[in-house]
Amino acid sequence: MSSSSTTPILKDELDIVIPTIRNLDFLEQWRQFFQPYHLIIVQDGDPSKVIKVPEGFDYELYNRNDINRILGPKASCISFKDSACRCFGFIVSKKKYIFTIDDDCFVAKDPSGKEIDALQQHIKNLLTPSTPFFFNTLYDPYREGADFVRGYPFSLREGVPTAISHGLWLNIPDYDAPTQLVKPLERNTRYVDAVMTIPKGTLFPMCGMNLAFNRELIGPALYFGLMGEGQPIGRYDDMWAGWCMKVISDHLGLGVKTGLPYIWHSKASNPFVNLKKEYKGIYWQEELIPFFQSVSLPKECTTPQKCYIELSKQVKAKLGLVDDYFNKLADAMVTWIEVWDELNPFDEKTLALPNGVSK
Amino acid sequence: MSSSSTTPILKDELDIVIPTIRNLDFLEQWRQFFQPYHLIIVQDGDPSKVIKVPEGFDYELYNRNDINRILGPKASCISFKDSACRCFGFIVSKKKYIFTIDDDCFVAKDPSGKEIDALQQHIKNLLTPSTPFFFNTLYDPYREGADFVRGYPFSLREGVPTAISHGLWLNIPDYDAPTQLVKPLERNTRYVDAVMTIPKGTLFPMCGMNLAFNRELIGPALYFGLMGEGQPIGRYDDMWAGWCMKVISDHLGLGVKTGLPYIWHSKASNPFVNLKKEYKGIYWQEELIPFFQSVSLPKECTTPQKCYIELSKQVKAKLGLVDDYFNKLADAMVTWIEVWDELNPFDEKTLALPNGVSK
Repeated sequence: MSSSSTTPILKDELDIVIPTIRNLDFLEQWRQFFQPYHLIIVQDGDPSKVIKVPEGFDYELYNRNDINRILGPKASCISFKDSACRCFGFIVSKKKYIFTIDDDCFVAKDPSGKEIDALQQHIKNLLTPSTPFFFNTLYDPYREGADFVRGYPFSLREGVPTAISHGLWLNIPDYDAPTQLVKPLERNTRYVDAVMTIPKGTLFPMCGMNLAFNRELIGPALYFGLMGEGQPIGRYDDMWAGWCMKVISDHLGLGVKTGLPYIWHSKASNPFVNLKKEYKGIYWQEELIPFFQSVSLPKECTTPQKCYIELSKQVKAKLGLVDDYFNKLADAMVTWIEVWDELNPFDEKTLALPNGVSK
Repeated sequence: MSSSSTTPILKDELDIVIPTIRNLDFLEQWRQFFQPYHLIIVQDGDPSKVIKVPEGFDYELYNRNDINRILGPKASCISFKDSACRCFGFIVSKKKYIFTIDDDCFVAKDPSGKEIDALQQHIKNLLTPSTPFFFNTLYDPYREGADFVRGYPFSLREGVPTAISHGLWLNIPDYDAPTQLVKPLERNTRYVDAVMTIPKGTLFPMCGMNLAFNRELIGPALYFGLMGEGQPIGRYDDMWAGWCMKVISDHLGLGVKTGLPYIWHSKASNPFVNLKKEYKGIYWQEELIPFFQSVSLPKECTTPQKCYIELSKQVKAKLGLVDDYFNKLADAMVTWIEVWDELNPFDEKTLALPNGVSK
């Protein structure tokens, strides 16, 4: 395939969503790459704490009080004291693309020592099609120097629009608590120079650390669930979003890519704390995967919103039997879509004013 | 996952199958890696031509006369003047593992400049499990320095036995004739340091250039079809084998890996000649893929042989309508299994003597 040169995405087309910022180094490190873009910071903890954003960044900041004020009683669908709150930023953004990143993720270097502009790689991934119906053994066929190999049906070479670009992590791998405990010293040092489409019908663990997506195509499916304070589970926000997003993308004929870009994940979270958060997730997951593998959405579901509402019904009907938590979650999924549609009616700019400084 | 150290496969467990050898350099280049193993050379062309094998290699060689003598009228299922004849070597081997490689494939170097022992990487791939039911974003979780990431169900972490290890190619990529014509100068220079399982339900273009498999698990499914002289199609032998193999592996719960190892593919075949060979394949393929995507095998099919016979019936019933060639091919598929079972009855050593020199 002739490689498509990347059209630079204008500032008007992409927001960077960050669930809290605990240290200033984070933005300083990313300054050259992030400064041209608008940041949406969603503060995950105590709203009385002040997040300092260095000079020169264009941002808006929402804390819990803002979320409560903007959403009213429906704020209950947004998690508190958990990075799952990031999805509030997806709702209030009005841009076509979102890049979301955690504040312990820094600029990685490629094997030649060059700093990786993760955002530009995500943009490349999102602007080129995906190939979910057939696996290409030389990976992304739209990349410079690559193509579809012999035996790849010509009718499938146009691909489908890309909804998701899932980036990876050098240094601290995204392990669960048991694996962290067993392998405390393991570091990811392998730079795999590939981007690939995750095939239709295949689920994967979507990590929210370094993730970009086309908000217009898939935004409403990227709800990060009920996690953290007051909930029986944590560290499954991105997983939940990923599984919901994947079955909906498969149904809508959208593509999901994983691989490049890498970021440098600086700090392993505490495995003992994580174990407590993940405990229920680890065994619920054994029921969740067969559930998501068997989800079937009817033809009438032609938008991510309709798919998501239908999915919430199936969650209630089937996972509600696993634990009452999933009834609550199913209700929150409906609330999420209500909120999405309220704040995004026909792309009108109805955004309530945040209390953060916007330069 | 704690990385499993590779048990070296003994000479008694693996054969190297080569469809003809057109130049002596090939074996000289591979000498350090291949000499410990037994070679099975299946001469694809004129049987009166003599293939010279350098000193020091342990080999057996079959030409068309040998194949006719050993199989009698059933030799019709083995292609003539086409590298598809390599599958005769799979039948006469009595080893557990097969590595098959083309004679224009040489030793590649990894990014550090080290020569790649492709065979040892294939062995690693075959001796570690596959993960076809769920995608691991850090690729092969059994590899040193890698593991299953957060959100990977624990019940799936044992994986399944690996049937196939599909290796890749640096330098000349495996493109079809139209792509070769459009991009005559494209070379694959990207070393992607990954091995991954192709998910269940996903088809891929399996190339026969650099391929290893577990003959006990999947051998009877690796029939390379009717290609070359007297047939309306060429260069689809490995594709055909790959699609049959994949649906059977999926049915039997076996794994298929792709990625490392790389070989150096030295020479692009003539795109004009290839276009003639591929012409029918390129449009038949558009019917073949939906066919293979919809194949369903009944529970009673518990061996590759039973699966293959069932598949031959479905080929006849459905693809026979596309072209009469597929009726012939379906019959040949049945003959292939008859031959396989005749020459491999309960693992008894009934191999007819080849006329090649065996040292």
